[in-house]
Amino acid sequence: MPSGSATAPTPVFFVAGGTGISAETLGNLMLQQFPSLSFSRRKIPFIRTVEQMRDVVVELDSSMTEQVTPLVFSTVSDEEIRQELLRTKCAVIDLFGPPLDDVERVLHVNATHGTAALHGLGDTRRYDARMKAIEYAMEHDDGASLRNLESADLILVAPSRCGKTPTSMYLALQHGLKVANYPLVDEDFDTGDLPRPIKDLGDRCFGLLSTPARLSQVRGERRPGSKYASLAQCSYELRRAEALYRAHRIPSINSAKMSVEEMAAVIMQSAHLSSLSS
Amino acid sequence: MPSGSATAPTPVFFVAGGTGISAETLGNLMLQQFPSLSFSRRKIPFIRTVEQMRDVVVELDSSMTEQVTPLVFSTVSDEEIRQELLRTKCAVIDLFGPPLDDVERVLHVNATHGTAALHGLGDTRRYDARMKAIEYAMEHDDGASLRNLESADLILVAPSRCGKTPTSMYLALQHGLKVANYPLVDEDFDTGDLPRPIKDLGDRCFGLLSTPARLSQVRGERRPGSKYASLAQCSYELRRAEALYRAHRIPSINSAKMSVEEMAAVIMQSAHLSSLSS
Repeated sequence: MPSGSATAPTPVFFVAGGTGISAETLGNLMLQQFPSLSFSRRKIPFIRTVEQMRDVVVELDSSMTEQVTPLVFSTVSDEEIRQELLRTKCAVIDLFGPPLDDVERVLHVNATHGTAALHGLGDTRRYDARMKAIEYAMEHDDGASLRNLESADLILVAPSRCGKTPTSMYLALQHGLKVANYPLVDEDFDTGDLPRPIKDLGDRCFGLLSTPARLSQVRGERRPGSKYASLAQCSYELRRAEALYRAHRIPSINSAKMSVEEMAAVIMQSAHLSSLSS
Repeated sequence: MPSGSATAPTPVFFVAGGTGISAETLGNLMLQQFPSLSFSRRKIPFIRTVEQMRDVVVELDSSMTEQVTPLVFSTVSDEEIRQELLRTKCAVIDLFGPPLDDVERVLHVNATHGTAALHGLGDTRRYDARMKAIEYAMEHDDGASLRNLESADLILVAPSRCGKTPTSMYLALQHGLKVANYPLVDEDFDTGDLPRPIKDLGDRCFGLLSTPARLSQVRGERRPGSKYASLAQCSYELRRAEALYRAHRIPSINSAKMSVEEMAAVIMQSAHLSSLSS
């Protein structure tokens, strides 16, 4: 009987010496390739000693049944702890096994097998810069502060509720970019010029759009039945915003069908921005 | 000659059908195992056709030199596009090769090899909930709004500048949790009680601490030479905050030596919270 049938979700574990973010993100990406199955997930981060791993193996093995072999995605790098994990009866997808061996072969250097801490503090100065980017994004959210706009790496421009805020936060948090965002309102469409505060900063602006239906839906959740949420108003603002972007050669994307992660990747690619953290 | 010597950083590419977040996060985790080498990184996301991949392969191959074999981390899942990538002369760490084959073997089901989109919109309702979590975190940052605190999944409590804001944002953005944060000030230490707005919500509070030296440094950047940034004041607030947490059995962590990612992982584990997105 195939494991993971509708009646028995396959247990999946993400085991790591650090936060488990890498094991989880790659593991979940692979599991998406099996849409007919269901899974129950558990993350077990910060395994730093052989003794801790011994307890983990007991837990893993207790989830085995005759029908189902649990899957374990591991990014444990310490060699001794890794060997302890490999004693489990579960199936281990050891991301620090063969793939890392391949990397070693290419680089002609042995891996240190120290505890990996990609998501640790790392370089404090770089980390502090990331934290400052979040602060900057908070202060410059929705045009809240127009001071110091010229020090932004990027200014997201869009009508209300097109996704400026979450996208700004994501870019700040994940990539350490100082992102301001500027809301377009009806008056901004009067002259055909860029609004005064961003007039000379067009080269670092990026526009967001949406579809009238999606925008109307999102606005309706905030102010049901309002003119603000009406299809006509949404449609008008999007049309004018698009014209404004085009006139000023501001690149733009439609946020209606994209996640913040996708928008961030597209924006960075298009604006030739690179992550502070890489 | 080993590749990646000080004079020639090894080119590293992250190639993906989607955002490239998984390839990048796991690849960077592996590269940390080679601290003596240097790398130049480039992400190539959203490769959706064989033609696009053909261009990518040209670019990859042009970065080959006699001395250096570039590394390519790939999470391309479409079989035809993957095969095209494997024509490169660079070394491909194909995360959707052998590791995915292992997963297939365990699950007794073939992978769909559809374009993976872990970081896409996915389930719109779940995505919208994540976006609402960000909105909630923005509205409830630094005690800005005390309305609706009882609907928080988590309330971070701490003296000013201990990391409440970035940690709240991270938990909201990555895990879809509704996180409020509440700043402790001197008056909150007068009675020994929890501050009134969170008095009955102690079970969902989590405390942050720091070290006096680190807190004084961070505050000093905002208000140099102030009483607020003085070692004595920082030390006092941290001592009283810690006593308050202990008296009310509020779990806490020290943010001085941890990244937001690490804090988020510890907090979720300790508070038995699970990610909305898994």
